[in-house]
Amino acid sequence: MATSLSLSKAISARSTATHHPSTPAHHLPSSLSLSSSSSSLLKPSSFSLKTTQRVAPRATVRASAVESLDKSVTSEDTLVDKSVNTIRFLAIDAVEKANSGHPGLPMGCAPMGHILYDEVMRYNPKNPYWFNRDRFVLSAGHGCMLQYALLHLAGYDSVTVEDLKSFRQWESRTPGHPENFETPGIEVTTGPLGQGIANAVGLALAEKHLAARFNKPDMEIVDHYTYAILGDGCQMEGVSQEACSLAGHWGLGKLIAFYDDNHISIDGSTDIAFTEDVDKRFEALGWHVIWVKNGNTGYDEIRAAIREAKAVKDKPTLIKVTTTIGYGSPNKSNSYSVHGSALGAKEVEATRSNLVWPHEPFHVPEDVKKHWSRHTPEGASLETEWNAKFAEYEKKYTDEAAELKCIITGELPSGWEKALPTYTPESPADATRNLSQQCLNALAPVLPGFLGGSADLASSNMTLLKMFGNFQKDTPEERNLRFGVREHGMGSICNGIALHCPGFIPYCATFFVFTDYMRASIRMAALSQAGVIFVMTHDSIGLGEDGPTHQPIEHLASFRAMPNVFMFRPADGTETAGAYRVAVLNKKTPSILALSRQKLPQLPGTSIEGVEKGGYIISDNSKGNTPDVILMGTGSELEIAAKAADDLRKEGKAVRVVSFVSWELFDAQPDSYKESVLPADVTARVSIEAGTTFGWLKYVGCKGKAIGIDRFGASAPADKIYKELGITKEAVIEAAKSLC
Amino acid sequence: MATSLSLSKAISARSTATHHPSTPAHHLPSSLSLSSSSSSLLKPSSFSLKTTQRVAPRATVRASAVESLDKSVTSEDTLVDKSVNTIRFLAIDAVEKANSGHPGLPMGCAPMGHILYDEVMRYNPKNPYWFNRDRFVLSAGHGCMLQYALLHLAGYDSVTVEDLKSFRQWESRTPGHPENFETPGIEVTTGPLGQGIANAVGLALAEKHLAARFNKPDMEIVDHYTYAILGDGCQMEGVSQEACSLAGHWGLGKLIAFYDDNHISIDGSTDIAFTEDVDKRFEALGWHVIWVKNGNTGYDEIRAAIREAKAVKDKPTLIKVTTTIGYGSPNKSNSYSVHGSALGAKEVEATRSNLVWPHEPFHVPEDVKKHWSRHTPEGASLETEWNAKFAEYEKKYTDEAAELKCIITGELPSGWEKALPTYTPESPADATRNLSQQCLNALAPVLPGFLGGSADLASSNMTLLKMFGNFQKDTPEERNLRFGVREHGMGSICNGIALHCPGFIPYCATFFVFTDYMRASIRMAALSQAGVIFVMTHDSIGLGEDGPTHQPIEHLASFRAMPNVFMFRPADGTETAGAYRVAVLNKKTPSILALSRQKLPQLPGTSIEGVEKGGYIISDNSKGNTPDVILMGTGSELEIAAKAADDLRKEGKAVRVVSFVSWELFDAQPDSYKESVLPADVTARVSIEAGTTFGWLKYVGCKGKAIGIDRFGASAPADKIYKELGITKEAVIEAAKSLC
Repeated sequence: MATSLSLSKAISARSTATHHPSTPAHHLPSSLSLSSSSSSLLKPSSFSLKTTQRVAPRATVRASAVESLDKSVTSEDTLVDKSVNTIRFLAIDAVEKANSGHPGLPMGCAPMGHILYDEVMRYNPKNPYWFNRDRFVLSAGHGCMLQYALLHLAGYDSVTVEDLKSFRQWESRTPGHPENFETPGIEVTTGPLGQGIANAVGLALAEKHLAARFNKPDMEIVDHYTYAILGDGCQMEGVSQEACSLAGHWGLGKLIAFYDDNHISIDGSTDIAFTEDVDKRFEALGWHVIWVKNGNTGYDEIRAAIREAKAVKDKPTLIKVTTTIGYGSPNKSNSYSVHGSALGAKEVEATRSNLVWPHEPFHVPEDVKKHWSRHTPEGASLETEWNAKFAEYEKKYTDEAAELKCIITGELPSGWEKALPTYTPESPADATRNLSQQCLNALAPVLPGFLGGSADLASSNMTLLKMFGNFQKDTPEERNLRFGVREHGMGSICNGIALHCPGFIPYCATFFVFTDYMRASIRMAALSQAGVIFVMTHDSIGLGEDGPTHQPIEHLASFRAMPNVFMFRPADGTETAGAYRVAVLNKKTPSILALSRQKLPQLPGTSIEGVEKGGYIISDNSKGNTPDVILMGTGSELEIAAKAADDLRKEGKAVRVVSFVSWELFDAQPDSYKESVLPADVTARVSIEAGTTFGWLKYVGCKGKAIGIDRFGASAPADKIYKELGITKEAVIEAAKSLC
Repeated sequence: MATSLSLSKAISARSTATHHPSTPAHHLPSSLSLSSSSSSLLKPSSFSLKTTQRVAPRATVRASAVESLDKSVTSEDTLVDKSVNTIRFLAIDAVEKANSGHPGLPMGCAPMGHILYDEVMRYNPKNPYWFNRDRFVLSAGHGCMLQYALLHLAGYDSVTVEDLKSFRQWESRTPGHPENFETPGIEVTTGPLGQGIANAVGLALAEKHLAARFNKPDMEIVDHYTYAILGDGCQMEGVSQEACSLAGHWGLGKLIAFYDDNHISIDGSTDIAFTEDVDKRFEALGWHVIWVKNGNTGYDEIRAAIREAKAVKDKPTLIKVTTTIGYGSPNKSNSYSVHGSALGAKEVEATRSNLVWPHEPFHVPEDVKKHWSRHTPEGASLETEWNAKFAEYEKKYTDEAAELKCIITGELPSGWEKALPTYTPESPADATRNLSQQCLNALAPVLPGFLGGSADLASSNMTLLKMFGNFQKDTPEERNLRFGVREHGMGSICNGIALHCPGFIPYCATFFVFTDYMRASIRMAALSQAGVIFVMTHDSIGLGEDGPTHQPIEHLASFRAMPNVFMFRPADGTETAGAYRVAVLNKKTPSILALSRQKLPQLPGTSIEGVEKGGYIISDNSKGNTPDVILMGTGSELEIAAKAADDLRKEGKAVRVVSFVSWELFDAQPDSYKESVLPADVTARVSIEAGTTFGWLKYVGCKGKAIGIDRFGASAPADKIYKELGITKEAVIEAAKSLC
């Protein structure tokens, strides 16, 4: 496999770049390497060169998940112990200072954290965005002090000791859960359990896809691993099951997840609610499963497990690492009390004593500091080497390099917008879901990072890219993702893809009502600035017979209320194209497109420029910005508003029709623009939308009328439901006449 | 085991009540019983008495999930075949007439459906609400014509042939997905995939709980099974994994789920997204797993599987039934095209010919009709017998009978409200999550059907009932449910409990922001009129350091927009108690309580009567309904409004303070009441709430000001965030002064 070749090269490069002996690790005699079990698959280390450490402290730990803590301490382990304890105490001290946070996980997971960041992972601390870095996701995000401590030791500028001291404080770079938008070095935002592992599946998918598309027999330009740590909580969440089932299906061999198996959850022993056989479940999902029985001090076990995981190339690996939560705390370890609260001064002291750690808070011993300092030059070398390789690649494979560059940088190919389809009022009537498919199929060929799919509704959501095949285990270069009926996992996986590098533009699809299944992932997209495009069809009672379980009512309002989301409800082809244009251009804001199942006419007056303003006039027979009445609508009801206007105009009224395709964009316009669309003096205003009226008061004003549906829908043919629920031209006309 | 004893009794009763020979099935010689493999665990049947049927039709089916369709046809099977084909064609014909619907599942699952409703389940078609009935859930709800056909054959008045003919039409009792509130005989509302199986877990939990609490060594008064049919889609959904993991943990032995393993999903073969080993996963979850290889015609295999499932009493059972979707359709079976569309006239004819079904649409052959007709007298007998048993139980166990009666009927014990705690302004300040716990612990002893728990946050949500232990496999009589970190499964399980019988009042809890994980189940509670109480703590930025992933912003608005939900945000103990009062009294509307993590004072002026009106005046120094300004708030910000009012009054202003604890309740008040709280003439109005301002315009009016948070939160101590985001007394005063 090319993978190991490249890895050796990288290892070689790292070694060359350090001030330590430059022999690549796989050429070292075993007595000189990190431990007897280290190999070319692990990073080389200089631990064995330091032999003057004190004997490793032996911790007192109560009966716990780890059956036995006995181990033969070798001098090679002493600096590792010291580094691991540095991580533990940075976490303890930061939580103590904040008097808030979660010390238990960092204390238990410090060994695997140390091995990952110090021995295994390839990254450049001075450029956290270096493309070919290994990705790490702390799915159990509450344990973020683990990652902050690791980033600090590894030399990331984003986490200085001052940052550690301002853990969980206003505007610090060390917030209470890992946030990619606050802290360079954090890949994705975690905390809500299960999201991180699903993001990690997306990151690993992105790597597998790019590797298949861009690597050449003579040049492996994309080649990194994705690591994650997840806890019992993540394991229990349905979203992780969904994502992990897909990871197994897709054979994401470079995804390596550590399961922190500490037997403790907030409510006590995991026995009270979680007695399933996790190993067996993951085997059923097609994962390779390894059990590290002593995660507290079994460094070699952890190293061997990673080695084994890397050797399994066709399956993701779950390394179950049994640990003791709060390891080292004599009175609180192995109990829920250490999960989410500061230890308290007394217990901190007891833990210091127990782990033989006489240092002041936030102390990093000089030898530990010095040891970790090599990551800065080594990381720079890794990037330099990769850059050189890419320059060579660019020469040989110019077109591919240009595409890959777009994906890496996020720069859009010039003129991409010209690919968007255009429509005129004469274009045939069509459902916006179909018009959306025209856009998707127009965009994919011109946007190298554009890929996506549906949660088993491709033929209903109309999301297939016709020029591409299915992304599958053996065809990962393709761009149609098949998520199965797994909405939540789909959303979170797409968040991971979007955050892999700036040029990815993932889209995903289901029925609009089933955003309820994936709302947490949509919110995480919004919060973590992941520009996913959520293609949501069957957007109202207009879907008809499937009935109220399938008919969105409150969904538009619920997303209009969510920060940093564009909630689009386009009315026709032009508006659909406009929504895609805005979505593609705004990489830090996810977009939701609510699309119709039913046919809609191409309306005169709609425009892409209008969509960019969110709300705009599509027709008006008034003069001087003083219409008798303003009719507003979105999506499939804009047609109704337009027809009502026609009738009212026949009766001599001056009527303006406004499309409110995106409230967020309209609200962001200057007041002068808003006044030009909705003049304050014109209080006769009527809105119509086949959804809740909640929120419409903002536009119809205190004297206007909002026509909508403030109840659940019903099962019947769509026309019948529209009529029975009063979403009609007649209702608009009646309301308008009552106002002007 | 008492279970089989009671079952035999019931079977005996059924037989006695029919006009067929009264020998109980387990006394019949095997040649006379339904098939060679039927036994006392299956219902007796009179099939073997009918021997004049035509030879069973042999269907042409393309290569499909079922490896071989060869079977030896015996005369005993002929009426079964005929009944099964009746079910198939009722589904085909109804979908064809509606030109909308899902024929594939009913055609494939007709055999298991027939066996369940005709041979296995105990129910009374003339009283669909008879307490001790077996419950059936069609988790794959799109296949609802299967269940409508079965209810029709079984004699339910809710599904006449006219109802079948109006499938999916306006106001019909046969909507596009099964809806418990439309169609007696439907237990829960399904369609959104995975919900049904999770509801079924709740139904089975309810049975296990009641059986443990109320059965006596000499009298088994609670004793029924819960059956479900789920498809590939349900299996892929995370919510089903969550619920099934709990079902295994709880050892719900009387839950028997049929997995319709047809290898087809909407996007094609399940191979494109679903290759996990489902059997192994369920074994890992602690289920007993059986595979029926020929679900199309292997009646005896199905019967044997049910027998085996019933024999396993300490585990739920998954019966994987491999079927052919659209069985019988020569050109469309075993393909996605038969999943969700009418077959079309031509293919209907081809299917009629293939299955030798020469009848007109909606025809039920006389012998089939006659055969099924016995369920009416048999069902009546079952209920009569149970009623007699209950009368006896009532004599011997008066107290238990009274409790059980409350649960069965939903009648609240008189005086229950007196148990609610009361507070005065002198009562100590406390977080509403703690005050909520006082309410929960006050209610549980007086409401026999009150039970619930948290998604691994019991000690944060404050939801433990101190007088009860944990509901566990071996202590199912207890009332603290431990859901683990499974919010979605928790919500859907609670929906199942609530719909088991009217007196159950389940509550469930997590952080308010994680309603995003369980929004689909909350919507299903609202739609299906399941009066679950959702206890949602940590309801704002007031939770502090955990940061924006944990801080709700848009959540209040998003639920205020949802039909049939009470969204409460109580400000103190009195309002918390008031919210619980409304929640308990409104069994058909779920309630969400948003509760604070932080301490709040007991405010003067709050009242339970006020809560019942949703919005009400807590203090006012104005006269004649003409205050200078109206300040409004909810929850933790009502205190801020009250303090601002104090300051403004000191400056001579006439200030009214209004609590808007539930918008839905206020909106339901008569206009005169609304005018008494918010007089139209008083346009100086300020609202304050630590959440989005979206929607507040409704109350502050076009000239008022809404103070809120229209961005994501931040990680910092709560006070700091309040100050930085402007949720302060000073902001209210400033806004008020700008208006009056």
